[in-house]
Amino acid sequence: MSLEQVFKDIDASYDHYKSVLAEAVAIKSISSDPAHRQETIKMTHWAKERLEKLGARCTLEDIGTQNIDGKEIPLPPVLFGQLGEDATKKTVLVYGHLDVQPAAKEDGWRTEPFTLFEKDGKLFGRGASDDKGPVLSWLHAIEMLQKHKIDIPVNVKFCFEAMEESGSLGLEELLTRNKNKFLAGVDFTCISDSYWLGTTKPCLTHGLRGICSFNVEVTGIQQDLHSGVFGGVVHEPLTDLIWVMSQLTTVDNRIAIPGIYDDVAPMSEEEHKLYETIDFSVKEFRESVGAKKLPTEDKKTLLIRRWREPCLSIHGIEGAFSGTGEKTVIPSKVIGKFSIRIVPHMKPEKVNKKVIDYLKELWKKRGSPNTFTPSPGHDALPWLADTNDANFKAGARAMKIVHGVDPDYIREGCSIPITLTFQELTGKSVLLLPLGAADDMAHSQNEKMNKVNYVQGVKTLLTYLLELGKSH
Amino acid sequence: MSLEQVFKDIDASYDHYKSVLAEAVAIKSISSDPAHRQETIKMTHWAKERLEKLGARCTLEDIGTQNIDGKEIPLPPVLFGQLGEDATKKTVLVYGHLDVQPAAKEDGWRTEPFTLFEKDGKLFGRGASDDKGPVLSWLHAIEMLQKHKIDIPVNVKFCFEAMEESGSLGLEELLTRNKNKFLAGVDFTCISDSYWLGTTKPCLTHGLRGICSFNVEVTGIQQDLHSGVFGGVVHEPLTDLIWVMSQLTTVDNRIAIPGIYDDVAPMSEEEHKLYETIDFSVKEFRESVGAKKLPTEDKKTLLIRRWREPCLSIHGIEGAFSGTGEKTVIPSKVIGKFSIRIVPHMKPEKVNKKVIDYLKELWKKRGSPNTFTPSPGHDALPWLADTNDANFKAGARAMKIVHGVDPDYIREGCSIPITLTFQELTGKSVLLLPLGAADDMAHSQNEKMNKVNYVQGVKTLLTYLLELGKSH
Repeated sequence: MSLEQVFKDIDASYDHYKSVLAEAVAIKSISSDPAHRQETIKMTHWAKERLEKLGARCTLEDIGTQNIDGKEIPLPPVLFGQLGEDATKKTVLVYGHLDVQPAAKEDGWRTEPFTLFEKDGKLFGRGASDDKGPVLSWLHAIEMLQKHKIDIPVNVKFCFEAMEESGSLGLEELLTRNKNKFLAGVDFTCISDSYWLGTTKPCLTHGLRGICSFNVEVTGIQQDLHSGVFGGVVHEPLTDLIWVMSQLTTVDNRIAIPGIYDDVAPMSEEEHKLYETIDFSVKEFRESVGAKKLPTEDKKTLLIRRWREPCLSIHGIEGAFSGTGEKTVIPSKVIGKFSIRIVPHMKPEKVNKKVIDYLKELWKKRGSPNTFTPSPGHDALPWLADTNDANFKAGARAMKIVHGVDPDYIREGCSIPITLTFQELTGKSVLLLPLGAADDMAHSQNEKMNKVNYVQGVKTLLTYLLELGKSH
Repeated sequence: MSLEQVFKDIDASYDHYKSVLAEAVAIKSISSDPAHRQETIKMTHWAKERLEKLGARCTLEDIGTQNIDGKEIPLPPVLFGQLGEDATKKTVLVYGHLDVQPAAKEDGWRTEPFTLFEKDGKLFGRGASDDKGPVLSWLHAIEMLQKHKIDIPVNVKFCFEAMEESGSLGLEELLTRNKNKFLAGVDFTCISDSYWLGTTKPCLTHGLRGICSFNVEVTGIQQDLHSGVFGGVVHEPLTDLIWVMSQLTTVDNRIAIPGIYDDVAPMSEEEHKLYETIDFSVKEFRESVGAKKLPTEDKKTLLIRRWREPCLSIHGIEGAFSGTGEKTVIPSKVIGKFSIRIVPHMKPEKVNKKVIDYLKELWKKRGSPNTFTPSPGHDALPWLADTNDANFKAGARAMKIVHGVDPDYIREGCSIPITLTFQELTGKSVLLLPLGAADDMAHSQNEKMNKVNYVQGVKTLLTYLLELGKSH
């Protein structure tokens, strides 16, 4: 049985792959919303059944509860699976997540976000690319190897969680407890939960930014007030919050917090060169986001800012009026939400301190009698890997075989905190092997996975498993 | 039949009044939300049936449609009613509104906002005080006069709309068309849709602020982006919007827009005196809003700022993340919403121009390549009346009879734009006769009407109708 024949069978199986993805997308596993917790748990059970059909030995690992507004709400269990227990083979651990970001048609989706919809070779749906598509690609790859009776040359362990979009609550503790149990004997970890740099050339990812999230609460009146009746004679919490948040960045999106860039790692000569030769079009990037102009249009500066410098984004405000139309209200308690992406060698504790200190200083300057409560939210360290190990080499060979080109070695601006956890607990290499294209719009409206990326993704993961077996 | 006996019967009818209000509150007539438009229309039909039971001749006046996101949505009809057509009697026009502000338990209501709930002599529910309670008080008053076979010495016309909380769309045009039809022969107008200055002493209201609303839209990226992947390399619309909105007011809630106070009417000696003698406790006011400190704690300055000076409130942002938890998003299109309360002699066109000019100037100063679209929303003129006419005198006598004290003559900080329209179209006096207490929390969480205000309100309106009949 040649690989070519297997690949043909993968091409021919597209309708099946699509229908499985449609099933997964339809399960509204929004981890940040307690109202969708049952759906999130359901998604985990759904994945367990599919893994078991492939012959994997599965367990659902209880990771406790989450306190929301004083109520203890059960966290979705983590799905552990094991396929193959041959002591002569190496073992690869596959990680993916089953939960998704919130999505609603009224946010600007052209189609129902939880109904998979194919158009022009694109599969639209929340989670299609982040991360249900890639998770299913692992399952399809293994199913195909089994169908063609090709020996899988490595043992495969699966770790699929359903709280990734909400800071992977409970996962680190679970993995730490399993350092000498489920994680014992793992030789490689592979995570497919990031994106290519562009839309055509495959990449391997060797760096990620971390994150520090912040909540800034302002209150001072006991409930929302009518702005006609009370306007002009109270200190409005929202006005205070907006002023504070206006002091965080410059117009070009550089961070205004003193000392925030101090701990950014200096660049080596080698790294400088990498940025010069990498295949990236600023014009395409600008067009893909639909911007008229970017804060920098220099390729190297742009990639540096995206991958190895911190940035700050304001996400929104809880407690203020957010609907359509008009509501003449003075909101009583508002919570501003922003986050800073961090890079080597920034440390969350130090970043948190700098930010909270700065916020407190701003508040002093503001001089409002309202109550100001800034607090750090979840955080995650940045990550940087060695691209010369067996894991990266197997990934690179798989990409070359499927796509016919050597992948670019890139970094990502986003955080996959679990990457570092796996590296530390297994003491072995972690590879980020992205399947989706740069314009997949994870976390955004009209998230999609290209049909071609989905199908080639199955081939890539299948080949990666075979190539891993050749590494010594 | 003495008035005393009728009042006793009103006291005895409380359970009936409460159950009717519960029915009205249960109808979610949120006019700003197209999803609740059918409920809003239903509320109008419900009121029509009740008016007809009293013998009023009613019509539902079509006022056309509203364009929301390119769709034409029908406006709720306006309910016209007429009770008595005796040419020897004078005619009073009664105005009220049947729609309400949005409300949701998760905003901080202690009970379901659309289920009337009585506790400690208070009737909690959206619309209980603004304005379903007062509207029903008119109906109860007439029902009681009919029950006791007391001749109503005036003809009564009713105009109940259901778009008041959304700028009374379509009403002004309808009334203008009816200047010589439905509005012909009206001698007095009475509106019960404002509040006492405190919680114990009745008031008549002779002044209202107007309003100019504004929307500030910023966009520049074609859809929401993942803040990890794109953070640092795009100009974020929300950051721009927050900066612009931070430049609108000072910490003490004075407006930073140049020239905005220029057209505020100077104060006469007489007016100065009124503020000195009026019964108002700053301490009680501060405690009722739950603030630690107010921008001014001087009684006179506070009332002046509340009634006869402009103010600016920021209400919220549409398009940004507003839920609980975290969402690492860069919102693509955000709309900031704020409004300015205006007073004599400010003119909306002039205010709009000053504000939009200032916003454009701020945007120039900001220097962002994003797209900035500031626009005026709905506006309304301020209003000031003569308290010495027959209408105000009948209201004052009614209050004295029911409450045993002369009412205070106050102004309100909020807008009831229709007040001016009635004054202009009928050429006759408009009286604002508030029934609710200062702490009723209209537009806010846990809106309520006191049991005592509801019951005394029915008596006041009944007595007002009788007193109007004595005026010549």
